Parts: sequence; C-alpha cells; structure tokens
Amino acid sequence: MSKSVTPKSKDYAKWYTDIITKAELADYGPVKGTMIIRPYGFKIWENIKSIFDNEFKKTNHTNAYFPLFIPKSYLNKEAEHVEGFAKECAIVTHSRLKVNEEGSLEPDPKSKLDEEVIVRPTSETIIWSMYQKWIKSYRDLPILINQWANVVRWEMRTRLFLRTSEFLWQEGHTAHATEKEAIEETHKILDIYQDVVENYMGIPLTVGKKSDSEKFAGAVETFSIEAMMGDKKALQAGTSHYLGQNFSKAFNVKFQDIDNKEKHVYATSWGVSTRLIGALIMVHGDDKGLRLPPKIAPIQIVIVPIYKSEDDLNKIKTYVQSILDHMGKNQVSCYFDKRDKLSPGFKFNEWEMKGVPLRIEIGMRDLNDQVLTIAQRDNNEKSTIKINEANPFLIKKLEEIQLSLYNEALAFKKKNTFQTDNYTEFKKIIKSGGFIECGWDGTKDTESKIKKDTNATIRCIPLEQKKNLKCIYTQEPAKYSVVFAKAY
Amino acid sequence: MSKSVTPKSKDYAKWYTDIITKAELADYGPVKGTMIIRPYGFKIWENIKSIFDNEFKKTNHTNAYFPLFIPKSYLNKEAEHVEGFAKECAIVTHSRLKVNEEGSLEPDPKSKLDEEVIVRPTSETIIWSMYQKWIKSYRDLPILINQWANVVRWEMRTRLFLRTSEFLWQEGHTAHATEKEAIEETHKILDIYQDVVENYMGIPLTVGKKSDSEKFAGAVETFSIEAMMGDKKALQAGTSHYLGQNFSKAFNVKFQDIDNKEKHVYATSWGVSTRLIGALIMVHGDDKGLRLPPKIAPIQIVIVPIYKSEDDLNKIKTYVQSILDHMGKNQVSCYFDKRDKLSPGFKFNEWEMKGVPLRIEIGMRDLNDQVLTIAQRDNNEKSTIKINEANPFLIKKLEEIQLSLYNEALAFKKKNTFQTDNYTEFKKIIKSGGFIECGWDGTKDTESKIKKDTNATIRCIPLEQKKNLKCIYTQEPAKYSVVFAKAY
Repeated sequence: MSKSVTPKSKDYAKWYTDIITKAELADYGPVKGTMIIRPYGFKIWENIKSIFDNEFKKTNHTNAYFPLFIPKSYLNKEAEHVEGFAKECAIVTHSRLKVNEEGSLEPDPKSKLDEEVIVRPTSETIIWSMYQKWIKSYRDLPILINQWANVVRWEMRTRLFLRTSEFLWQEGHTAHATEKEAIEETHKILDIYQDVVENYMGIPLTVGKKSDSEKFAGAVETFSIEAMMGDKKALQAGTSHYLGQNFSKAFNVKFQDIDNKEKHVYATSWGVSTRLIGALIMVHGDDKGLRLPPKIAPIQIVIVPIYKSEDDLNKIKTYVQSILDHMGKNQVSCYFDKRDKLSPGFKFNEWEMKGVPLRIEIGMRDLNDQVLTIAQRDNNEKSTIKINEANPFLIKKLEEIQLSLYNEALAFKKKNTFQTDNYTEFKKIIKSGGFIECGWDGTKDTESKIKKDTNATIRCIPLEQKKNLKCIYTQEPAKYSVVFAKAY
Repeated sequence: MSKSVTPKSKDYAKWYTDIITKAELADYGPVKGTMIIRPYGFKIWENIKSIFDNEFKKTNHTNAYFPLFIPKSYLNKEAEHVEGFAKECAIVTHSRLKVNEEGSLEPDPKSKLDEEVIVRPTSETIIWSMYQKWIKSYRDLPILINQWANVVRWEMRTRLFLRTSEFLWQEGHTAHATEKEAIEETHKILDIYQDVVENYMGIPLTVGKKSDSEKFAGAVETFSIEAMMGDKKALQAGTSHYLGQNFSKAFNVKFQDIDNKEKHVYATSWGVSTRLIGALIMVHGDDKGLRLPPKIAPIQIVIVPIYKSEDDLNKIKTYVQSILDHMGKNQVSCYFDKRDKLSPGFKFNEWEMKGVPLRIEIGMRDLNDQVLTIAQRDNNEKSTIKINEANPFLIKKLEEIQLSLYNEALAFKKKNTFQTDNYTEFKKIIKSGGFIECGWDGTKDTESKIKKDTNATIRCIPLEQKKNLKCIYTQEPAKYSVVFAKAY
C-alpha cells in the first residue's frame, strides 16, 4: 500500500477512488459496472444497515425476501414506471449452458425462455403482484415490509459506490387502507433516514420534495435527503415515495374496508443504498484517507504498541488490558494491533487511511510515565493523558469526534450554500460549486432551461418553504423555494 | 386461514406445503421456480443467520460482497466445476429493453452483450479471480471471507425452501498458505455447522465425507451434515469443501511464501442455505403445524388474553406486565397478543400453526386465582402455575422444550437407522424408509448399481468409521462404512 492518496484539491475523482482502493473498501468486478465490497467496506455497510434495520423494526416493519427475477410483462403494467425507469436492465433469455463444438460454453438454444425475465431494478412490480394475493380485508392492513437486497440497473459509466450495475440496498414497500396513513408513513421513513444519516453518519442534510421531473417513475410524490459532497456537488442519499394508488390500480390490489366497500390500497416505497458509503467518503474524507464517525466505524479505537521485544509487547498488553476490558463492556470496538513485521509508522498510516477515529500509541517510555499518547483522526491532534484517566477520556473523545465531524460538514455546507435571485450570479455560483436556495415558478420549462444552461437540477423543494421569492429564471413570483445544485 | 393442515400420514408433501402456506412462511413467485420468503419465515432465517454469523465472526471470518454477475468464460476455467455443476443457470444476454411497435417491451437487439453473463450459481470462480489480484505474499494469508447472498440454479421442479431457482445462503471462501491449515478450516466449519444445527435448530445429524460421485464439482473432499426428515428421507443440510489447489491453479493464485518460494494457495468453500428452514419444518412439524425450537423461534412465548371488555384487557395487561418486563430483560421474545376482533380460539390455532414454543392463556378467573395456564407446543400439554412463580418456570420450560424437540428427533432418527449386510434386507428397508449403516467396497460401480436398484445414495462416509464390514452389494471386504438413504 503506497503511503498517500492523490490530493483532493488536485483531482477529486482520483482522490475518491484512491481512498476506496487504499482503504480496501471496494474493487472493480470483472463484468463492466460491477463492484466487490471488500471486508472493511462491508463492515461499514453492516453497521449502517444494522442501525437502519433497528429503526425499521422499532416502527413495526418486518423484513421479507422477494425474487430477483421479474417477468418482463410486469414492467409493462405501471405505465410511468416503465417509461421513466426500467429500460437499462439485465435481461435473462436462456436457462442452460451447453458445451459447443469448440469445447466452450454457450447458451443452449433449446433453453430459450418463453418470456424473458428481468433482474429486478427495484421490486414494486413483483411485490404488488404478491400483495394482490395477500390483501383481502382491512384486517390485512397495513403491510409494512422491508427487504435488504441486491438490485441491477445496467450502467456503463461505473463509479464505485455511486453508480454501479449492481448495488445493495433496502427497499420498503408498504400498503395502507388510507391516503393519510400512507402519507404519514412516507414522512416517518424520511425522518428515520434523516436521523440516521445526520446523527450516526454525521452527514448534514437538506430534506424536501422532488420536482415532478425528478421524482420516481410511478410515484405521486418523492421526498429525498440531499447531502453536499466535498466538491460541493449534491448527492441524493435516500428517497421516500408516496405512491398513492398507482401500483394498487396497476396490479388490482383491493381490500374490503370496515364499511364493507371495496377500495384500492394506498402505497409507499423507500430506499437507501450502498451509495451512502460514497457519501461518507466524500463528506468526511481528507488527504490522509477516510475519516469515520465513531458510531459507524468498524474499529473505533486502535492501539498500536511500539516495541522491540516480545517481552515489551507483553508488558504493553498488560498495561492496556483495562482499556480493552472497559471498551469491550461498553460496546466500543477497540483493536490491539499487535501484528508483527509491520512498523508502527506503517500501521499509523494504514489506520489513518481507514479512518479509525482514535489511535493510541504506546511505547516503553509511555509505560514508564504511566501515560498514553492519543491521536484523533478528525483534527489530527495528539494529546497525552494519564493511563488511569484514559477510559472516560476515550469515551468522551468518541462522542466529541462524532459531533465535530458533523459540525465540520455542516459548516462546509453552510459556507457553500447561497441565496440569490439573480440568474447571472446563479450561473457563476453553479460554475464554482455549491447549493443555491432560490425561487422557482414551478414549471418544467424553467427547470429544463436552467438544467440546459448550467447542468444544475432542482435537488428538492425543502419542507420549510421561504415566502415571497421571485423565480430565479423568469423573475415571476415563485411558486416554491427550491435548492439547485449539480449532482452525482 | 383454515384450521388445519393435511395430516402428515396422509400426504407428506401436501402436509409440508400446507404448513408453509398456513404458517405464512413462504409463497410461490411468478417466475417458475422462484419463492417469496414471507416475514415470519424470514424472521426464522434472520435468527438462524445471526447465530451462524456470530460463530463465523468469533472464528475470525469477515463478510464481504461479490458481484451477482459472472463472465461466462470464468465457468470454463475449472474443468470439473463446469462439468458437474454450472449448466442449469440464468444467462443474461441483453442489457436494455425497448418498446416495440405493438407497444410492449422486448430486449433491444442493439444491447446484446459481447460475452454473456451468468447469474452466480456459486461464487468460487469470481472470488478466485479477485483473490488472484489481492494475494501476493504469505502476509496476505489466510483470507477468511464469508458472503450472505442470493444464488440461482435454474429449477423446473420447485419445492419451497428445498429446491428453488433462487435461494439465499452463505458461502465461505477461504485461502490458506498450507494444506494443513485449509483442511483444519474445512473441519472447523463443519463443527460450527453441526453445533448450530443440533444445538440451536434441534436437528440431530450424521456428519461425514461425501463419496467422489456426490462431492462438489471442483472439490478434493466434500464434507456434509445430513439430517433425517419426518418421512425418513435424508436432507443434506450443509457442506464444507476442501478445494486443495484446484481453484488457485485454475485462476493462477500464487503467493510468495516466507521461504521466498512462489506457491499456489490452498482453498476451502462452505455453505448453508434457506433449505435449513425446510429441514426445520420436516424434522419438528406435526399435524397442528410448525414446532419451533425456542432458540430460533421469532416469538418464544405468546400471551393470549381472554376478555370481554376493554377494562378486563387492561387488568390482564397489568397482571402480566412483570412477565413481559422479565422476558424483555432476558432477551426472551414474548408477545402479548391483544389483537381485537380475533377470537382466542383463532389465536391459539394461529400460534400453534406458527410453532410458538409456549402459549400463556389468561382469563379473568386466572387473574382472580393468581395463576396462569401454560400450553407447551412440543407435547401439547397444559399446566397451571402461580403467577409469582411464572418467570423462572417459563425460562426453564423454554430450555426443556429446546432439548425435548432435539431428543424426540434423535429418537426418531435412531429408530429409523438400521444396520445390515444383507442386500435383500437393504432393499426392503430403503423401500419402507430410513438410514442404513453398512459397508461399501468404495467403487463407483457398486454405488451406481445400488442407486439404480433402490434410488438410495451414499449420504456420507461417517467421520467415525466401523471396522471389518462387508460391502452390502458385493459382499467383498468393505473399504468404508457408509450411510445410505433416499434423499431430497
């Protein structure tokens, strides 16, 4: 592993992939557009996943698993869905390989499928085909199902974690008796997304509704959480859709209500994906590598012993045992890095690259002085503390780092968020980067003209609306206050 | 939900699918061979998964994620692997849908892939192509990676949980510097499998090595855990493969050893799948439905209140609060079923079908008498105990049920396991069902003749070998003692 990444300021895209490679988060798969999530990257995903899963379960959602394969005809059923969504996908046409005359494998023509099968790009269609079977009465409602799964959207321009043909995500699919309940669910999930991403991943968000042209194909309303990356571009980090009766009508899902009338069910769907790891890197990373918020870090504290003999190592081990014990009891992940044949310098570099929030360095002198040297990853500061004060100090430091990473990202986001009603200034700002809060007349025409001019899109119509603005483009009275930015 | 399942004795296959349907474990997907795992079934899977995952992590394995899509050419690389394994699979040939002149979707001919892509039937080939990139030195070894994933093997004769085109599993893929270490790993995993399946799922096992014709295509040795189902047939419940250098040679994975020599890596792979849920049903289920061992039951204790007024319900709630609190503190999943509009009888039936180990029934009279009525699912016995003795009693009962289900299955397995050296008797026993322990001369010829005669296969060559047996077929001195049975 070479010692450093390309500086952020020099080449942001290269810096990003350097971190992924050097921190061993992910790698490219052999089929174009595919990705391997390596153990360290996957552990971050497991931590994020477990926090979300816990929140979903607390709010009465259950997990289930639906098939990877969707009959082609299903995609035809919801008109907008197929129109706006499901074109670039993996299509299965055969079910058997045979060895040909040259001795290599080819699809057996006899195994050609009567109807092609699509590898799920998202599961609305297959799930609603099952809800049609399961839902008969208001007693069967609500259905609050979530699924952790892989999905496929064929991509040629790969970007690890951000744009890959296959990615991992969760997709919630709920069915409700009333519009009110379904809309409440949409917002409940949006709140969970915001809570986890801000308070665990330390990523400040702008939350709001998507414009019609940016919403999910098949949704009545799409809400999203938007984050600002280190290059000031926006990343859509999660979406929660109110689907109305679009899918229940397409799949004829009716229930007998308490008033004995047959009604169509109301629906939501919502998802976050491994893309969140991309956000984590781009929000917190620096030129030394990753910086991980303690609440989702696979290793929260690493202890690196500096020693010459086996005997010294054992003394250090004994010296730090009370810390290892205390952290174990407090569910703090603390790793004693006694790997031999690697120099302390190599280890420091590796754990910095991997973003471990706190590093403890211990040599024989520290042992004699009854102290510890502690290096923080957030600000790269070092401090020396007494061994007998270490435990509460370390726990408190982790809390501080959690907050400081969030606050640093928040300050960056605020600094690069601008208000204007002047379109010339708007174009200048978009060019140099950042979010712009401004007015929009609510028309598709204006939206697409701005996009054509600047490549910026409406990231969202924030939940908290500002009044009496002018449209940034037409200068007419604005219908909404919106946030514009270039986006991933 | 109708009140009962087809009796086991009447139609075993129907009984099996009845339980799956009525306990809401799974359902058929629209594409032939696919399955939906419904929330209750999925919760059982989550419990099983979390026990295995914990054991893997305790033994230093980490999770990762490799792509769903494998280039067709990769399957060609390990000759035996492709020959014996990877023929019936889903083949992706196109990457885009287009709307044709009739307005329906079809694969866009322009999106035809240069090389077809295979949906993973197992991940050896893609993982070893990556290990080739990651492994350079003995310092990079061992690699102990596990993956929880979906895999696809095209099946036309579906049987829920047992044989489906797509299923969920874990697949471990490890790389080692020495043969010794790789063989130790193979057995370490086999031990974990046996421990979890016997001590958590309550399923007694026969453990051993596969014969050459039954081993995994590409393995040097395959070990398996074999369980006896309620119809006396065998089910292979998990396999652990020692792969030798087969895959490292096929994918050219070499490392520089500590002696500076270049060597090929040694490998293992191992897996258990959602098939285990099929075993759970067939080992413990009865004519009232599922019976779940407490250690993997989504709900371990259900409390069903019997009441007429809201006021009575509240009194019962208060009455059992100390039980709910105590169980919560002890990580026992206890559900107070206060759903209205459902009769107590309906609820009893539902929870019996779903296999909840303990049911507490409480009416106003129990409250006056300061007692609880407790129904055990394992033996359907009821007992009445004093409320102030309930907590330790219930915890103890759960432990007893865990054991009693195992012991019942063990007694059944023993009763239906036979020894013989007479082939006529062998054929009679196989016909009426059961495991046969006997001698085998070790030849493929004998093995296939017996299979042709009886449909029975060698389930395994048990780790503990009996000496001085005669071959059941040739009457020559046996090379191995083996276990024969018909199998799923």
